Amino acid sequence: LEQGGMRKAGRMLNALQTAEIAHLLESLPPKERELVWNLVDAEHDGEVLTYLHDDVREHLIQLMDTGELVAAVGSLDTDDLADIVQDLPVAITHEVVKSLDQQRRDRLEKALSYAEDSAGGLMNSDTVTVRPEMTLDVVMRYLRRLRDGLPDITDNLIVVNRKGHYLGVLYLTDLLTHDPEDSVAEAMTLDVQAIPATWSAREVATRFEQHDLVTAPVVDDEGLLLGRITVDDVVDVIREEADHQFLGQAGLSETEDMFAPVLLSARRRALWLGVNLLTAFLAAWVIGQFEATIQQVVALAVLMPVVASMGGIAGTQTLTLTIRGLALGQLTLKSTRWLLAKEMAVAAINSVIWALVVALIAQLWFKDADIALVIAAAITINLLAAAFAGALLPLALQRLGIDPALAGGVILTTVTDVVGFLAFLGLATLFLL
Amino acid sequence: LEQGGMRKAGRMLNALQTAEIAHLLESLPPKERELVWNLVDAEHDGEVLTYLHDDVREHLIQLMDTGELVAAVGSLDTDDLADIVQDLPVAITHEVVKSLDQQRRDRLEKALSYAEDSAGGLMNSDTVTVRPEMTLDVVMRYLRRLRDGLPDITDNLIVVNRKGHYLGVLYLTDLLTHDPEDSVAEAMTLDVQAIPATWSAREVATRFEQHDLVTAPVVDDEGLLLGRITVDDVVDVIREEADHQFLGQAGLSETEDMFAPVLLSARRRALWLGVNLLTAFLAAWVIGQFEATIQQVVALAVLMPVVASMGGIAGTQTLTLTIRGLALGQLTLKSTRWLLAKEMAVAAINSVIWALVVALIAQLWFKDADIALVIAAAITINLLAAAFAGALLPLALQRLGIDPALAGGVILTTVTDVVGFLAFLGLATLFLL
Repeated sequence: LEQGGMRKAGRMLNALQTAEIAHLLESLPPKERELVWNLVDAEHDGEVLTYLHDDVREHLIQLMDTGELVAAVGSLDTDDLADIVQDLPVAITHEVVKSLDQQRRDRLEKALSYAEDSAGGLMNSDTVTVRPEMTLDVVMRYLRRLRDGLPDITDNLIVVNRKGHYLGVLYLTDLLTHDPEDSVAEAMTLDVQAIPATWSAREVATRFEQHDLVTAPVVDDEGLLLGRITVDDVVDVIREEADHQFLGQAGLSETEDMFAPVLLSARRRALWLGVNLLTAFLAAWVIGQFEATIQQVVALAVLMPVVASMGGIAGTQTLTLTIRGLALGQLTLKSTRWLLAKEMAVAAINSVIWALVVALIAQLWFKDADIALVIAAAITINLLAAAFAGALLPLALQRLGIDPALAGGVILTTVTDVVGFLAFLGLATLFLL
Repeated sequence: LEQGGMRKAGRMLNALQTAEIAHLLESLPPKERELVWNLVDAEHDGEVLTYLHDDVREHLIQLMDTGELVAAVGSLDTDDLADIVQDLPVAITHEVVKSLDQQRRDRLEKALSYAEDSAGGLMNSDTVTVRPEMTLDVVMRYLRRLRDGLPDITDNLIVVNRKGHYLGVLYLTDLLTHDPEDSVAEAMTLDVQAIPATWSAREVATRFEQHDLVTAPVVDDEGLLLGRITVDDVVDVIREEADHQFLGQAGLSETEDMFAPVLLSARRRALWLGVNLLTAFLAAWVIGQFEATIQQVVALAVLMPVVASMGGIAGTQTLTLTIRGLALGQLTLKSTRWLLAKEMAVAAINSVIWALVVALIAQLWFKDADIALVIAAAITINLLAAAFAGALLPLALQRLGIDPALAGGVILTTVTDVVGFLAFLGLATLFLL
């Protein structure tokens, strides 16, 4: 692009919301991304960085020198700063922390004391509080005197007592529709329960979804108000969790940059391929035990992928349903027993149907009733094993502290491959030779 | 449970939010679900139904008689009614529509005229509007006179001209912090662009995420205000889309009830198993072409699943990344070309690494350098084919109007199975016999 075009593109770019700039940057291959990043006004740099996924953020941080980075990051409010400060080079972190006044430094420390995926990690400290004994008229005069106005996404004021303990919320809608002579205590709502800072991000998201919340107060063990969580951050949590579930199945991280450098991608993918190679060789080893059988009946080699694949597909269906049930918190130990029984019944019905179909095709293809019978039996066994594994694996993995979304699929297909080959070739060895 | 326990359980249940009751119902196997449903107060029935996924809703609707159903659904506001009216039996719909007054009937008709997954389908009609020339003082007096207060989740009032055209929004926070003598025009915000009713739910979700919106006005082609969308409905859209992506891969619908009746589940699953059986037999047919080769070198039968599986895993990684990129609107035709080149390069690197590893293992196992060379070549070919298919399939499917989240995985593994078996057994036939 020539100079004039560039300047015009820069103006259009900087007129966008910072989240939109971040989205655009993530949609671009490295060269274009660097070009566009250079067009972003320095004053937006910090905010754009907070909206980016880890991989892309790291990419862009590498392009900035210390001065630029300290300037960009130093202008962020403490809560946003806390979100990205851990991804910065240590030297930069030092510079940034040095540039903060004592109050902001304390706040940053406090924000960093909570796990990133906890309510404490999600919360912002920009609360506006009122006392129950104030009249609404006084509240409104107080609001008009606020120097910076009210923070973005404010649907209520938080009501606390003298010691800072959470009491309830005063919705702005109630503040506006009640008599100005009423007290806060008369107009406030007690239904909004405060969220403990130790709750997980997932619990917070469920609470927001089930109570249609826009913001929620966060408290410590003693009920002392610490901050508030806003719905935009909850939306990000939901999106990230969904990405984790979807990408995790393929062994990818939810922070994966579509346009990551080739070598980085290759290294990450290699790990997953290696894990899967182990399971593939386990299946191959099972087949190897039956070399003599295959030599005598080559049709077995032709048909064996059908047995394994049917098991893998059926098992994945059960597994997917179970993983989602766990993620939504809709699966208890008791209902798992019910689910297992149901999935086994579904598998039984489908194994009868598809064992018959496959047997019929095998019979027509190889004109050998024994092969047809053996494959029918093997498919039945494998579909039942698949349902069993699919229903119980996620719970078992969760107990062991292993993420089912990541490991479930690999382990399941190992089970269905091994059981499938073993049943098919084993039965063939017993009955065909 | 005995009588007293039941009554206590009922009280606890009805103290929950309707969304929480819906979540609980979805977590229960059929019998317990019916038991709990009978404990829900009739006045909550309608709202609970709106929160349920289609399958569970249908289950519970079948348990209700016409009178109950008309009473439950008739009490809903028009927008909620529009969301579920299409799932009701025709006779019930007639009864319900008959029971509405003309104004509500007109509103319902209007709500139903938009596709469920469009901005028009998502919007509610509960807007509170003001005129730019009013002073804030007048606005506040107007709000205090509203009989029902302001609707839930109101962060702004919508500013329209005399003809009802959208002009901007007046945030409640601005209303509260500006001088009461100011006019609406002075305090309102012009940055919030109205959403056209024809936008897809996905576009709406992106807008909300990128602008951190709580509510947004919806307009028709002429800019006439039609209604507003609230963030709680957008959260549902994001959740449903994620479910669709995750469950779709296993051929499951996002409305799938974990505790659906066995026969219903079996029938739905059977379809997916049938589709996959076709692709499995296609792979078997390919193997069948090489029966003579396998008879001579049985080691091929042992190793061939390794080739197919490595291709499937690598291809799924690329496919997953591409499907997510498409879903986020981050993949254009131009960047797809870049992505394809990158994925092919990643595949090239990984194919070299893993071809060497697999060749080494094959050599150690079967002491046959030719087999080792053939499997190395086959894995290289299959990983490259996998990357090619994984990068281009989703775009091609989308062009054809086929949902990549649903069909992508099946087609991809068909490609990697066929290419894998063909390359491995074909090369073996050429070089080993």
